[in-house]
Parts: sequence; C-alpha cells; structure tokens
Amino acid sequence: MSILVVGSVAFDTVQTPAGRADGVLGGSASYFSVAASFFAPVHLVAVVGKDFGEENARIFRDRDIDLGGLAHLPGKTFHWSGVYGDDINQRTTLATELNVFEEFEPVLPERLRKAEYLFLANIDPDLQRSVLKQMKRPKLVACDTMNFWIEGKRESVLEMLKGVDVLLINDQEARQLALDANTVRAAKKILGFGPTSLIIKRGEYGAALYSGHSHFAVPAYPLLDPVDPTGAGDSFAGGFMGHLARRGTLDEATIRQALVVGSVMASFCVEDFSLRRFQSLRPEQIRTRLKEFGRMTQYADPT
Amino acid sequence: MSILVVGSVAFDTVQTPAGRADGVLGGSASYFSVAASFFAPVHLVAVVGKDFGEENARIFRDRDIDLGGLAHLPGKTFHWSGVYGDDINQRTTLATELNVFEEFEPVLPERLRKAEYLFLANIDPDLQRSVLKQMKRPKLVACDTMNFWIEGKRESVLEMLKGVDVLLINDQEARQLALDANTVRAAKKILGFGPTSLIIKRGEYGAALYSGHSHFAVPAYPLLDPVDPTGAGDSFAGGFMGHLARRGTLDEATIRQALVVGSVMASFCVEDFSLRRFQSLRPEQIRTRLKEFGRMTQYADPT
Repeated sequence: MSILVVGSVAFDTVQTPAGRADGVLGGSASYFSVAASFFAPVHLVAVVGKDFGEENARIFRDRDIDLGGLAHLPGKTFHWSGVYGDDINQRTTLATELNVFEEFEPVLPERLRKAEYLFLANIDPDLQRSVLKQMKRPKLVACDTMNFWIEGKRESVLEMLKGVDVLLINDQEARQLALDANTVRAAKKILGFGPTSLIIKRGEYGAALYSGHSHFAVPAYPLLDPVDPTGAGDSFAGGFMGHLARRGTLDEATIRQALVVGSVMASFCVEDFSLRRFQSLRPEQIRTRLKEFGRMTQYADPT
Repeated sequence: MSILVVGSVAFDTVQTPAGRADGVLGGSASYFSVAASFFAPVHLVAVVGKDFGEENARIFRDRDIDLGGLAHLPGKTFHWSGVYGDDINQRTTLATELNVFEEFEPVLPERLRKAEYLFLANIDPDLQRSVLKQMKRPKLVACDTMNFWIEGKRESVLEMLKGVDVLLINDQEARQLALDANTVRAAKKILGFGPTSLIIKRGEYGAALYSGHSHFAVPAYPLLDPVDPTGAGDSFAGGFMGHLARRGTLDEATIRQALVVGSVMASFCVEDFSLRRFQSLRPEQIRTRLKEFGRMTQYADPT
C-alpha cells in the first residue's frame, strides 16, 4: 500500500562537530519519503523553487518516489541553516528562509486523495487540516508538529489532532501540548486529544509508544561517529510508516516493529549529511541492523 | 552470596513537585542496601552520628541488613537537602553537611573482607581505593562516582577504576570521565580504563550496558506519579548487584537481566520519599513489575 507525505523540501546548511554541508537537500518530506521508500511506494507533496534542479529530483526518482505532487513555484526553495554543539544533541537554528514555502497551499491531485497511508510532516497545522479535509478515508494518518505551532496555533493543532491516528513528537513537545511537566501523564492526556497512538521521539535515547493500555519503548541504535542528526525524526517516521504500509496491518505487534524499523532508519540518517547515507543504503544493510537491534534489546525473563 | 556495600547513610530534606520530606533516612548505601536486600544478604559499611536512632536502624534490620560495619561517631549524621523542579528530572542541591562523614575512614571487619560482591557507592575515590585494598579477591566489584570526584580527583578515580569490574554512572559523568562529547565513544574509552562493563544510567530514559563487543539498553519503567527520584540510581545498583549475587553468575545474559531488575527497583524507589516504598514492597510486586517490564520491551523480529 502506498504512502502520501505532505511536508517540506528544503536546502539546508548544517554545521556539526563532524563537518559542514552547504545548501544540501533536506526538509521533513525529503527525509520521510526517502526513508519510507525502502518499504513502500511513496507520493511526495511539497513545493520547491527555481533552484531545485534535476540533480535534486534524481535523488527522489532513484528511490522511485512519485514527484507528481511536487509544485514548482517561481522564487527560491525553503532554506534552513543550523549548527550543532560538541554535544551533537544540542542544536541552534541560524536561519529559516521560507521563500516559496510561504505560499505553500497543498492541493492534492485526485489520485492521491485515495492514499491509504498519510503522513503530515511538521508544517502549519492549518495546512495539515486542509490536507486532511481533501483525503478520502485514509487507513492511517500520522503527523508531526513542533513547539512553534503548539505555542502559536494551539487550537488548530488540537483540531488537527482529532483527525490523526498516530502523533510523533518529542518529550518537550508532548509536555507542552498536554500542559503537564510529567511525560507519562502528558502522554495519557494526549491520547484523549484524538490519536490512538503517541510516539515520543527521544533522540539518542530512542523512542516510546503510548497507546490505550500499552506501553513500549526502544533505545536508539548507538552510533560511534554520528555525522548529522538533521532529519533523524523524519527518517524515523518514514521507517515507521513504511513498515506499516508494507505490512498493511495496524495491530499493536506491527506498530511495535514499526518503531524498531523507524529507529534503525533514523540511525542510518545520522551517519552522513543530507540524504547521502540513504543513497548508498542497501536493503540487506537494513536487515542486518534490524537483527543487531534485536540482539541489543533482548534478555531472558529474570523472574 | 552476600554483598558488601560501602557508602553513605544520610538524613535528607527533599522537596519535589509531589511534596516535601524533612530529615528522612537517605544516603547511597541506604538505598543500595535496602534494594539489594530483596535478593541477597547485605552487609552495610557506613558512618552515622548520635542522631541516628533505633527507629532508623530498624528500617535496615527489618530487611535483615547486617549493621555490624556501621560506625557510630559523636556528632551529627551526614545531611543533604535538595529541591526538584516541575520537571522532576531537574535537581538543585541546597545543602550538603558532611558532619561525621568527614571523618569516615572505612575499616572493614575481618569477616567482611571476604565478601564476594562489593559495591563502592559514590564516595571519595581515595576511600574507595582503601576499601579495595582491604578486600580479599572479591568475585565482582561495582562502583559509582560523580562529577565532583571526576573533576577534583581524576587521578584517584582512574586508579580506583583499575580494580573495578562494573562502573555505574550517568551520561554526563561518562562524557566527563572519557573527555569525549559522544556517549558511545566515551563508553568505549572507559572500557579501556579497567571496568569490563559500563552501565550508563539515564534516569527517565532507562539504562544502557556497554561491554566488550556487546551493547544492551533498557527503557525506564514509566511512572504516572513519580514522588521523589532521590536514591533511584543507588536502588538501581542495589537491584543490579542483588540479582547478580542471587544468581552467582556473571555471564552477559545474567548481567542483562540484572539491568532490568535494577530498573524495576529504581522505579519503586521513586514512588515515595526516602525508603518508604521499599518498606511496604512485597517480592510478588517485584515479580509482577518484572513481567510487565518484559511486555513493555518485547517485539517480534520485523525482518
């Protein structure tokens, strides 16, 4: 089953303890779609400017990602730049130039409205709601958001969440959204806002799943030489949705597996700048790391 | 097999979002020994003052903890006070009054020098080394330390680590000890300092084990209503060593189980102030939570 993602395509300028990359392909929808493409067909809806050339499009085409929904507008593509500290988990945004993204009004081609899996990457919740309205009974809707929207457009975020099955955010965003300083209590509250599953992304500490009566948590795959964490959360979401779409089932056991696949795809993302690691990634390398991840989390009942 | 712990017994004054406790029993050796006592016999070596009365001793005796090595000196018992923020993971120390602890020079009774399991709780590394010298070929030595000693007595910490099998510290301490901003790299370096296993305690994010060629990680048991995190790390160590001493084996599989037992004992600790939760804790409650922990971390191979 195929996945529709609506989000941003951007050019990033990134500095990390491992080096620097200038004006490289990035954006939430880019990371998501490339990571998901290892598991299921992906349709990308986003907007780019005149500076988005064939060499960029090829990165998506090489992964068989459908670019029919990628709008080309006059002007420049969204540009983000940031710097990571010696502790690579600390990030400072230096510049956010929305450019053509400011005019982004996603209108879904008719054929995409029937997509069964929808991922609303981190964009204005008003746009996320507009996309939701255009969809025809998707089987699963997942979304991301951020502190900027939770603070500035709280009502719209809450309205959007009513149409969402799975929310993927980090600890701090969860606490902010629920107005509760305890992450576990915050998670319970958020499950009352609409989503049936909440995934808390914890960066180097892994991820946790909260749903009805169940709790599940996985560590992050440990990297000796992380290069650039940009896009790790979106790559996680891509692996997560990819696994669900490939399996076509939404039971708890499959959702748990999807968290593990998401963690592994995030770990690959961090191994190089931009989407580079995915460009050379082979399916057997994913399988090997998934096996390794299994060995890393298994233990015999101590009782 | 029995466990010897050398560390602090203290009176704590603690304020958390859940309330306040004044002058209640605390200290690294107290939390460790009470948590470990659910699994193996424990001998406690520490120092207290004249204000340590029979009502305090009874808390240890009720758990069959051997107090033969508890020195009573004129003066007041070590007193610590701290306050936790709305985010209960943020702690500020308000006062540290060493009192009789300043004169603490652990001299082990002959019968304790043959203990097979030794835990050196977080005290001056010079004292930890003095204890190590008095021991007769322990089967396993584990220890804790903190930023204060890593900064102030680095050489002594490194010397002490040569005699230690398992080091239990947090992320930040690991990075500081290894002088490396990346926790995974820091862990590898620390394994070159002496310990064959390193356990990184991550508070609400669980714990990770690094050893030779293996990596293992567990999440924390999620608590809806944490009351007081004081002593959670020492309770973790108590559960960890307790399980190892009960099993009498030190293979990787048993060490992994011990991490899980440690996580569960830490979660009980946080459910009330001081050692209160342990005073009412029943072995079947530990077993139930260990089973729940298993369900929380299990998934089927996604490949």
